[in-house]
Amino acid sequence: MKDLSSIDCNNLLSSMELISKHIHGVANEIEVENVKKMLINIMEAKRIFVMGAGRSGLVAKAFAMRLMHIGFSVYVVGESTTPAVKSTDVVVAISGSGETRSIADLGKIAKDIESTLVTVTSNRDSTLGGLADTVALIPGRTKEDVGGYLERHMRGEYSHLTPLGTSFEITALVFLDAIIAELISIVGISESDLQSMHTILE
Amino acid sequence: MKDLSSIDCNNLLSSMELISKHIHGVANEIEVENVKKMLINIMEAKRIFVMGAGRSGLVAKAFAMRLMHIGFSVYVVGESTTPAVKSTDVVVAISGSGETRSIADLGKIAKDIESTLVTVTSNRDSTLGGLADTVALIPGRTKEDVGGYLERHMRGEYSHLTPLGTSFEITALVFLDAIIAELISIVGISESDLQSMHTILE
Amino acid sequence: MKDLSSIDCNNLLSSMELISKHIHGVANEIEVENVKKMLINIMEAKRIFVMGAGRSGLVAKAFAMRLMHIGFSVYVVGESTTPAVKSTDVVVAISGSGETRSIADLGKIAKDIESTLVTVTSNRDSTLGGLADTVALIPGRTKEDVGGYLERHMRGEYSHLTPLGTSFEITALVFLDAIIAELISIVGISESDLQSMHTILE
Amino acid sequence: MKDLSSIDCNNLLSSMELISKHIHGVANEIEVENVKKMLINIMEAKRIFVMGAGRSGLVAKAFAMRLMHIGFSVYVVGESTTPAVKSTDVVVAISGSGETRSIADLGKIAKDIESTLVTVTSNRDSTLGGLADTVALIPGRTKEDVGGYLERHMRGEYSHLTPLGTSFEITALVFLDAIIAELISIVGISESDLQSMHTILE
Repeated sequence: MKDLSSIDCNNLLSSMELISKHIHGVANEIEVENVKKMLINIMEAKRIFVMGAGRSGLVAKAFAMRLMHIGFSVYVVGESTTPAVKSTDVVVAISGSGETRSIADLGKIAKDIESTLVTVTSNRDSTLGGLADTVALIPGRTKEDVGGYLERHMRGEYSHLTPLGTSFEITALVFLDAIIAELISIVGISESDLQSMHTILE
Repeated sequence: MKDLSSIDCNNLLSSMELISKHIHGVANEIEVENVKKMLINIMEAKRIFVMGAGRSGLVAKAFAMRLMHIGFSVYVVGESTTPAVKSTDVVVAISGSGETRSIADLGKIAKDIESTLVTVTSNRDSTLGGLADTVALIPGRTKEDVGGYLERHMRGEYSHLTPLGTSFEITALVFLDAIIAELISIVGISESDLQSMHTILE
Repeated sequence: MKDLSSIDCNNLLSSMELISKHIHGVANEIEVENVKKMLINIMEAKRIFVMGAGRSGLVAKAFAMRLMHIGFSVYVVGESTTPAVKSTDVVVAISGSGETRSIADLGKIAKDIESTLVTVTSNRDSTLGGLADTVALIPGRTKEDVGGYLERHMRGEYSHLTPLGTSFEITALVFLDAIIAELISIVGISESDLQSMHTILE
Repeated sequence: MKDLSSIDCNNLLSSMELISKHIHGVANEIEVENVKKMLINIMEAKRIFVMGAGRSGLVAKAFAMRLMHIGFSVYVVGESTTPAVKSTDVVVAISGSGETRSIADLGKIAKDIESTLVTVTSNRDSTLGGLADTVALIPGRTKEDVGGYLERHMRGEYSHLTPLGTSFEITALVFLDAIIAELISIVGISESDLQSMHTILE
């Protein structure tokens, strides 16, 4: 272990810069047609169900909270009062690899029920990508990631600065909050409307 | 409601760019001395407890998962098997306003027990800011936010694009994942070590 | 520690018998008029919110799941998609002591909003008992508990066999499932109806 | 729907009596040798992992809380800081049918890792029953259930009074709390010890 007094926070600052650039890069590579399809799937569904495992499950919950705030009927798969899915519902599955076993199993069930399945993933050619009616692709590495900043500062260290699925999870959260911004624009809700729907019991 | 066929995803793309710039701005304003204190609080504690309400609670859980992956003894306040806090533990409270009632109450209890309290917040002059041994400040608005990009694209629309606490929550998540990157550098763990600690049952 | 080979399961069997007798005793002391009021509160509310801390929180979730199965609009306070409470809602608080800090705070907020508050508790003369519109009393010790069985088998050992709040939590769960049985009788739902509302994604 | 003023709570009281008798019946049919094996599996394991879906998952959490209170290293599968299972751990799976898909999948993984698997179930001849090193059988119907009380009061109405898996879930909870009573006797812990380990932050 390093001497604690020598901590310089350089890794911390590099990691934040890297994520900032990654989000910029992903924004530039968003497939607008597919995102429009995803927005229409959400607007046309009777109810929205979201799901994910591990940290992607937390991202799913954060998205569900905002959907509730802006007035949608939304449920998190696995929470206590989540009802059975029906064919008129949309199920949004979040999985970086698209291969998370439990979520892929649930994705198959969602399609058996004939509900609409949207997959948010970095891997279009995955089980969940193949099952989905709509794939919202979050590129895992973008041109920005391999550009100048990385060239100079962290060649070969990418995984240390954003270990495991970190960059997917954060970028998926940013993307889904941006979906909320777009939905707010579509349905025409004000921030004071949001405040009144925000839970008081927390 | 807008005609769905006219959706152009401009709000979505602007929201992602805004968050990207906001993270860059926050990275430039990080108070390195306080962050070093936070890192030392975490390294020196026997166990780490994290807490937050609503979406900040999800950020707390995402941070806790990674701390577990890199080998720390860590608990989320409110989960089933979380034990009682002791004076040798550090409690990390996440609250944008620093005034979330339930978390502030728990912060007081944490200090009564004489454990170390770290607050991650946008508001140093808040109840949780005042209670804390260490404040990790995540500026709510940075110079980047009010710079050229905003001037041109979204004057007055900030709240629509990142409603309620959205920009705090995302930035806190990015900051805490960057704390993980710094801790990995301090303790010298490899990504394959991480993989072996990642839960297999999910 | 005892020699493991000498385990005879006598404490286990005594504990199960004790709980069985305790439930019988509580059934004999149920205040039917208050329970009718609770049923009417639930039937007349637009939506039902349930809450509890620790194991009482798990009991609240188990009750909420069944309410959802039989067709009520129900939410668990603290879950991701739980909306703000309104005056037309009923809030069911579960607390053996009636003094659990966080739940009592939320009970006060529920009354400020002018929603209906039902408290399930062993302690009528508590903060939550005092706040409630309706108290469903689950006696902590009943005549059965101090009768022949206990006299002979476990004088002085009561707390070992049902430590901390165990007997309240189990009896509250049994009572709330019995509320479900009564509601099923009132609304006239069949078990096959229940099956169709049972979640398929689990 | 019935007239609310005609509610007599007879179904409620019958349901409580039925559960009381069912627990008594299960206590009489407990397979003591298998329960001793389960206790030894728990005492000899390095760490304990518990899991279940839906209401059985809540029972698993309630059991985990008490194991933590009496000093065991215990984790709930699916919570934020639960680490990877190892061969020296015991996994306790709770499933009335023994066929819950997600839990059976995890049971297979637990056996692949060569950890010890205990299944608490009403169905020995199930997937989870077949996988388990030890089966703790909770009979779904006991002699008590079909005795005089039922004969007189609820012929044919059993499912209304304890719909779906209700009687399994409650009885599993009672059984697992009785396991705690037995463990307390084995390890020799006092109620004041329990109090000190009880979480203060709730």
